[in-house]
Amino acid sequence: MRALQYRSIGAPPEVVEIDTPEPGPGQVRLRVTAAGLCHSDSFLMSLPEEQYIYGLPLTLGHEGAGVVDKLGEGVTGVAVGDSVAVYGPWGCGRCHECAQGRENYCRNAAALGIAPPGLGAPGAMADYLIVDDARHLVPLGDLDPVESVSLTDAGLTPYHAIASSLGKLRPGSTAVVIGVGGLGHVAVQILRAVSAATVIALDTDPEKLALASEVGAHHALVSDSSAIERIRSLTDDHGADAVFDFVGATPTLEIARAVVATDGDIQIVGIGGGVLPTGFFSTPFGATVRAPYWGTRSELIEVLQLALSGHLRVHVETFSLDDAPEAYRRLHDGTIRGRAVVIP
Amino acid sequence: MRALQYRSIGAPPEVVEIDTPEPGPGQVRLRVTAAGLCHSDSFLMSLPEEQYIYGLPLTLGHEGAGVVDKLGEGVTGVAVGDSVAVYGPWGCGRCHECAQGRENYCRNAAALGIAPPGLGAPGAMADYLIVDDARHLVPLGDLDPVESVSLTDAGLTPYHAIASSLGKLRPGSTAVVIGVGGLGHVAVQILRAVSAATVIALDTDPEKLALASEVGAHHALVSDSSAIERIRSLTDDHGADAVFDFVGATPTLEIARAVVATDGDIQIVGIGGGVLPTGFFSTPFGATVRAPYWGTRSELIEVLQLALSGHLRVHVETFSLDDAPEAYRRLHDGTIRGRAVVIP
Amino acid sequence: MRALQYRSIGAPPEVVEIDTPEPGPGQVRLRVTAAGLCHSDSFLMSLPEEQYIYGLPLTLGHEGAGVVDKLGEGVTGVAVGDSVAVYGPWGCGRCHECAQGRENYCRNAAALGIAPPGLGAPGAMADYLIVDDARHLVPLGDLDPVESVSLTDAGLTPYHAIASSLGKLRPGSTAVVIGVGGLGHVAVQILRAVSAATVIALDTDPEKLALASEVGAHHALVSDSSAIERIRSLTDDHGADAVFDFVGATPTLEIARAVVATDGDIQIVGIGGGVLPTGFFSTPFGATVRAPYWGTRSELIEVLQLALSGHLRVHVETFSLDDAPEAYRRLHDGTIRGRAVVIP
Amino acid sequence: MRALQYRSIGAPPEVVEIDTPEPGPGQVRLRVTAAGLCHSDSFLMSLPEEQYIYGLPLTLGHEGAGVVDKLGEGVTGVAVGDSVAVYGPWGCGRCHECAQGRENYCRNAAALGIAPPGLGAPGAMADYLIVDDARHLVPLGDLDPVESVSLTDAGLTPYHAIASSLGKLRPGSTAVVIGVGGLGHVAVQILRAVSAATVIALDTDPEKLALASEVGAHHALVSDSSAIERIRSLTDDHGADAVFDFVGATPTLEIARAVVATDGDIQIVGIGGGVLPTGFFSTPFGATVRAPYWGTRSELIEVLQLALSGHLRVHVETFSLDDAPEAYRRLHDGTIRGRAVVIP
Repeated sequence: MRALQYRSIGAPPEVVEIDTPEPGPGQVRLRVTAAGLCHSDSFLMSLPEEQYIYGLPLTLGHEGAGVVDKLGEGVTGVAVGDSVAVYGPWGCGRCHECAQGRENYCRNAAALGIAPPGLGAPGAMADYLIVDDARHLVPLGDLDPVESVSLTDAGLTPYHAIASSLGKLRPGSTAVVIGVGGLGHVAVQILRAVSAATVIALDTDPEKLALASEVGAHHALVSDSSAIERIRSLTDDHGADAVFDFVGATPTLEIARAVVATDGDIQIVGIGGGVLPTGFFSTPFGATVRAPYWGTRSELIEVLQLALSGHLRVHVETFSLDDAPEAYRRLHDGTIRGRAVVIP
Repeated sequence: MRALQYRSIGAPPEVVEIDTPEPGPGQVRLRVTAAGLCHSDSFLMSLPEEQYIYGLPLTLGHEGAGVVDKLGEGVTGVAVGDSVAVYGPWGCGRCHECAQGRENYCRNAAALGIAPPGLGAPGAMADYLIVDDARHLVPLGDLDPVESVSLTDAGLTPYHAIASSLGKLRPGSTAVVIGVGGLGHVAVQILRAVSAATVIALDTDPEKLALASEVGAHHALVSDSSAIERIRSLTDDHGADAVFDFVGATPTLEIARAVVATDGDIQIVGIGGGVLPTGFFSTPFGATVRAPYWGTRSELIEVLQLALSGHLRVHVETFSLDDAPEAYRRLHDGTIRGRAVVIP
Repeated sequence: MRALQYRSIGAPPEVVEIDTPEPGPGQVRLRVTAAGLCHSDSFLMSLPEEQYIYGLPLTLGHEGAGVVDKLGEGVTGVAVGDSVAVYGPWGCGRCHECAQGRENYCRNAAALGIAPPGLGAPGAMADYLIVDDARHLVPLGDLDPVESVSLTDAGLTPYHAIASSLGKLRPGSTAVVIGVGGLGHVAVQILRAVSAATVIALDTDPEKLALASEVGAHHALVSDSSAIERIRSLTDDHGADAVFDFVGATPTLEIARAVVATDGDIQIVGIGGGVLPTGFFSTPFGATVRAPYWGTRSELIEVLQLALSGHLRVHVETFSLDDAPEAYRRLHDGTIRGRAVVIP
Repeated sequence: MRALQYRSIGAPPEVVEIDTPEPGPGQVRLRVTAAGLCHSDSFLMSLPEEQYIYGLPLTLGHEGAGVVDKLGEGVTGVAVGDSVAVYGPWGCGRCHECAQGRENYCRNAAALGIAPPGLGAPGAMADYLIVDDARHLVPLGDLDPVESVSLTDAGLTPYHAIASSLGKLRPGSTAVVIGVGGLGHVAVQILRAVSAATVIALDTDPEKLALASEVGAHHALVSDSSAIERIRSLTDDHGADAVFDFVGATPTLEIARAVVATDGDIQIVGIGGGVLPTGFFSTPFGATVRAPYWGTRSELIEVLQLALSGHLRVHVETFSLDDAPEAYRRLHDGTIRGRAVVIP
């Protein structure tokens, strides 16, 4: 089968021919119907050798959807032909976190060498994908795999961040979304679907601000210091009850800090290299700062339900597997509107 | 191997010799080290044929502990020789509830014919037990299986009920435990361990009231109408913020209704045949009434941690497998102090 | 000033002339701009003498809005001329519940003889209203008092019920609203605003079903046994994660019981005289039944924010104070569409 | 009357004679029975003029208890002679936060010039204290004011921090307390009372470590880098589910960062001048960092209930009002064991 692999440090990924894998006991083989690209793929391919921990060659793709193609021994609950999405942050399945489906915070994954597909295990940018356990498959039903595959990360990650701030997002509250890219434009929609909060989106790119408005942001502001004034004024000087920073660079974190309300939340989602100095005289009383990671199993089910009920629509650009290297170039250049998806 | 089976409607259970089962792919065989008896076993053996849904013959025992004896194909994460407890309320593992480890409320178990060991599937009252999936095993570590096995139900069930009322059990609050049997005497200890609530235990049997005091109840009252007055007076007429009824018969539910506070909780745990009329002019404003079922996967981990840290001690009487029928007779007669455990 | 008073048991209310009251220290006098009618007014006027506890004569009206007219000594934070809504479930202000603004569950109100306006204290169906403390006033800002006054009960009461079930109303869940009257048609809108749940409304009156659809219900079903089948089918046999019964009569509670999901919630809001037998073999495992009362102070702020942001619109019919007795007759006959409001 | 006042920037506080104040409408005058000293008093007296915002002269004392001495007009619910504690973080009483009793996060206090007693308003280090509203008084009942007064800050502040992390402190979890001074030694007791978490206390002073063990810490460790190793080892490398840093200096925050678990909480309580860089590659995935402020009204009620039920005991050293300046010197030198209290 074909697979898009990162094969040597610093080199672009290539499409190669490899053996089609067989599912072992408990495993499931999918014929891939769609695989999403993500900035974190670019991030890992930018790492110097001494920081790169994902193994080589690495088949890319941690957003995957497929049709069940072959069942390993002992697999129950799924059938050949089912259309499914893949829950990516695989954990041990048995620790206190995994026992709640919070495999994204598994206590044992690192020690046991368990890694997500595309981030250690072979990923979805291939004709076939091996999934380690049927619990990591969520039925897609009538959802289109190409339009839905990005929900497994670009939907789940903002959903998880928003879900943990939902108690702050009561009617009358304000949510700020910084960065209206693949994740940010989904975040706006999720916020509108699950809360009555006023949603303010920030970006530097006018096209992305237009996208923010299109998908439901109440206000779309250029992401500079004038935005701080504006948010203060829109909230009667209270500030934002929750800020979701999908950039995570020093300048965006400074905005987050300047606009968050007393006892509000800052969720750093983007891996932009910044850190936020937290404490008295730096952040408001009671304000929490954290960098959440991906999402839980039940949250992925909920995200797909949001798509099914029409609350979410991911803007996608599609590419063939052979064009995937080009897609990564465009992602890096910031010229993708919404999310890029490969159809093998 | 030997197994204690319920073989014909209305007859007492018998010890019989059956084939030792082999674990299929994904399954685990345990050599049973302890199996607990439960009133719900007696309850199901009391059902008339038309209401009995568990299949015959039925190997009893839904509280089980054992040593891993043989692994089916594809099982990872446990090793032969591990001492483990069995999480009993098996679910499909993939629905929205199971994805949170809330298999006790699985949406698909009934439709898929999935049943707990001892309540449909072959149970733990045998030399060997097949567990359907390694996720249903929790390490016992250094805990003694005989003293701990009951925690899988007599610990987990009250823990689950208490956990869902924990928000009501702030300092200054009052919890009432009705019925200080196998579950109730554990409930008293859990309440003391995880809250600063005042714990009031009710029973009709002076020996059980003595046990309640021994395990930490602040007050132990004879379970009659005088208890209502007393609880009202101990709480400045506010009532109990949470009532856990481990009897569930009409008279105990009447006490629960009479003592629960405005916006308090009544958790009906005992299967005593009663129902509580809920609504305006019957229960106080805001008071919730529910009958929870068993517990979740992460809660079983937490219960075992309570035992490990010395917060919980189950009072057990032990029996050999051959004496198990006699143990059920004594359970039915109410002459067991604490919990009965069979050691095969 | 004029006041609509209930003056003798069983007689209709009358408009009478009484002295305009003066605000004492800490109190605020409002010039009433709007006062809402409620089924619970009819309910209390239907009570026989031995059950009637509200005092005579009683100026009706527990939904009130007004303009601040005169401040008692020591009042700060409000100014003459402010347009405000009145938080009705007055409590002692200092107990554990009141310290959280949960005055609707005040521990001391009954003992201290504190009663809401219109339900013991003189109500809002008058030219002027005395409010006992400025904390019971919420600014209306630019909201129209006539369109908003009903939110103080017909908005707050469903909001409170929904807020306490919000954890169950994740994406993919189903909420059932039984009874699309003054409260029910607001409940539908609140559910749409604060969750992504599918909303199913039930009523026996085709006009009210049309109203339900108009305000956002995904499905509007005739409230008979066919509705049970339909809800089961719409939810893949899972049932409703939360049921809000704004009727509360035996037949509607039977529907609630038949459609609620395992671990779901039944909130009985309507005072229809029914009670729901709760427990094993009557209600599903884990299902919660309760009859909440009115709402909290912060929830009223949130409800008004929902109106401000355009998420809520109460359908009102307006009456002069002189026509208020007629309005109560029409309310009793069930011919009001939405909510009736008196403008003094 | 006598009052301990901070009168000029940089000078030590002095006992002066001032007029005894009269309570206005809605206010309450207390005869002070006890007033607690706090590091934050020292902190404000260390501020240079351009940062000092509390007004001069300032009567110190934000921890106060007293006997109700005189009621302003319109005050209800308290009586002359009542023994009470003062809730200190006064707010407007009407914003969304205050409507939940979260006056410590009031949206309007700064704009309205509302300040706590001893931190802007005249404080409790005097013969008499004016309290602005009866809602800020909590009955002490039979609690000794001298032993309890510190609970209004040294109890309430750690309680608030712990309460917001309580969801992380399930059985099997670990809590770390850094700094076993006035607040830290109460934190250890609160953690033991309201959770089954393992409590690890850190300090540099052997006497304070002895105090930690005395009041219930499971482990008391010297607060250096060896503590990090030890905590990792005690938690099977998982780390601490919640860290409460009562020092808040750079070295203690570094320990907090090094020991906090994935998805754990760091609560910075001490005003030690440090900030914690939060974000990817700095703090673990999902770990939350915040600096909470004081506590809520209902939490103060709960803290006093913990004292009433014997769960809390503050170690106090007492001083006369005339010796208060000396007490502040000793507090600054770190030679107070537990908390210093002035008895006027």
